[in-house]
Amino acid sequence: MSIVLTGIKPTGDLHIGNYLGAIEPALKSAVDQNSYFFIADLHALNKEKDPQKIHQYTLSIAAAWLASGLDPQKIVFYRQSDIPQVSELTTLLSAVTQKSLMNKAHAYKAARDENLQKKRDPDAGINMGLYTYPVLMAADILLLQTNLVPVGQDQVQHVEITQDIAQNFNRTYSQPVFTIPQYFIQPDLATVPGIDGRKMSKSYNNTIPLFTTPDIWEKVVKKIVTDSDISNPKNSSLFLIYKAVAPESQSQNLLSDLENKRIGWKEAKDRLLEAIITRFGDMSRDYFNWLKSPQKIEAIFAQGKEKVIPLAQKTLASAQKACGLS
Amino acid sequence: MSIVLTGIKPTGDLHIGNYLGAIEPALKSAVDQNSYFFIADLHALNKEKDPQKIHQYTLSIAAAWLASGLDPQKIVFYRQSDIPQVSELTTLLSAVTQKSLMNKAHAYKAARDENLQKKRDPDAGINMGLYTYPVLMAADILLLQTNLVPVGQDQVQHVEITQDIAQNFNRTYSQPVFTIPQYFIQPDLATVPGIDGRKMSKSYNNTIPLFTTPDIWEKVVKKIVTDSDISNPKNSSLFLIYKAVAPESQSQNLLSDLENKRIGWKEAKDRLLEAIITRFGDMSRDYFNWLKSPQKIEAIFAQGKEKVIPLAQKTLASAQKACGLS
Repeated sequence: MSIVLTGIKPTGDLHIGNYLGAIEPALKSAVDQNSYFFIADLHALNKEKDPQKIHQYTLSIAAAWLASGLDPQKIVFYRQSDIPQVSELTTLLSAVTQKSLMNKAHAYKAARDENLQKKRDPDAGINMGLYTYPVLMAADILLLQTNLVPVGQDQVQHVEITQDIAQNFNRTYSQPVFTIPQYFIQPDLATVPGIDGRKMSKSYNNTIPLFTTPDIWEKVVKKIVTDSDISNPKNSSLFLIYKAVAPESQSQNLLSDLENKRIGWKEAKDRLLEAIITRFGDMSRDYFNWLKSPQKIEAIFAQGKEKVIPLAQKTLASAQKACGLS
Repeated sequence: MSIVLTGIKPTGDLHIGNYLGAIEPALKSAVDQNSYFFIADLHALNKEKDPQKIHQYTLSIAAAWLASGLDPQKIVFYRQSDIPQVSELTTLLSAVTQKSLMNKAHAYKAARDENLQKKRDPDAGINMGLYTYPVLMAADILLLQTNLVPVGQDQVQHVEITQDIAQNFNRTYSQPVFTIPQYFIQPDLATVPGIDGRKMSKSYNNTIPLFTTPDIWEKVVKKIVTDSDISNPKNSSLFLIYKAVAPESQSQNLLSDLENKRIGWKEAKDRLLEAIITRFGDMSRDYFNWLKSPQKIEAIFAQGKEKVIPLAQKTLASAQKACGLS
């Protein structure tokens, strides 16, 4: 069975667009795989220097995935910083990674181009964590002898760099130490509109929170922008959100009720609120329960660590041996 | 008592210039300190891709220092790759290390300048290990809360970069996690001339091996270039080598015997051979005995590891905590 690895960046509050567009599909596709999910807390350090936030985001993103149905008995769920071999392997990989390869990495290039545009030193404000990040990511992937990495289109390069590093290492030391990982581009999922009709996104401030209480959802749903003209409900953001949240048959009903003017926007909003509560109400309660018991999350991390360390140590040991370190 | 750290690069065969100019003074100055010596095998990977050589050089450099009198009961002697925390700390330090700082590092600049001179891509043939090396070295130093790093003039920059990284980390996380290390420039020792009169150096192929057998020393001593004119023996390479190897009183005798023409070059060479055997004969036998028992060297590394890991883990844990990990 293929080993499939997914990294999760610890970030702040999630919205239903994150769930429907990323979390749910990732969990669905993980079912019949030998799946590993990890919280990339070491990566997060490069950007976030507030220790409270690093700590809190790590717990809350773990709570989010657990509440979303990640079953730690079926999926190995671990925290990157719990695995010393990630950094140890990074050191070994660095010796066979051409610097010129890093110069092409998207995140570094974007930061450098911005500096150049603003007529600053090309490396101004860029830290070594950002620059060496593709090597750390290669270590994450290669350590588990990963076969498949599900990615969005913009992350294909990460896997390509990893392939390059793995091939270099295997060739340099004339041993097939690492499995060459492949990427799998996740099909484009319909994006969920936000309450103003644009794509739901934190940067537009138009999101419906994923984990909250019914009274907050009610307030947000009330703010959904609706056209005074009700003649074309099919393309309204209200209907499109409902369609993404409610079962197919119910969204057919809503559409026909709106089209035939059996109901108005107010009633439609009530139904959306109900659908949101049905779909995310229990999940939200679960989420807040997890957050109330960080020691339970720590126990799951400990269990993940216990499963990952032997694999990681096995790969590291063979890489060390190949290099001449004993 | 100050913690003093010295890194040793695993390299090939040593000559008596290495012993007199580096090994002996380092061991002498370590006596009254809380001294740690480590073999920098991870650093060596950046240059040496032959696993046999990495393995062999690590053992032989350890044998060399042990035969030279490094007492592992008094000096903690360990192998860099045995300490996972070195790489783990490197990852944390990378997040607070400006990339522009690395661009100034001597080793990288030299490689880049050579590329530019040869009209190649500035990063051609440069690997990430070479480029990130100052961060790994900072981790070596900071992990032990080192107070003092003995350096040659050309290594001052390493410690300065380490100071910079440590200060950045402490400031970023508002905690004095790391001791700021100081450097100590080792006084210039008289360099030993080689058998052709130039400085003894592997690159001039004019060395007297440190660990070998009397018959080899005899052959090398015979090749020492001497002037047919014996009128100024004081500046002859033969006398200068003798002076570096033999006790003060004996070198006075040799000089006066030569100056007064009581002896010729042949007799002087015999005395030099005798002095070399007296000084390095037992040491050589010890060296070859160590090499015959690699398991004894491994046992010493294991003992060093056992002493270093608790200190390293303590520093790493406080750095992780400061960042918000775990």
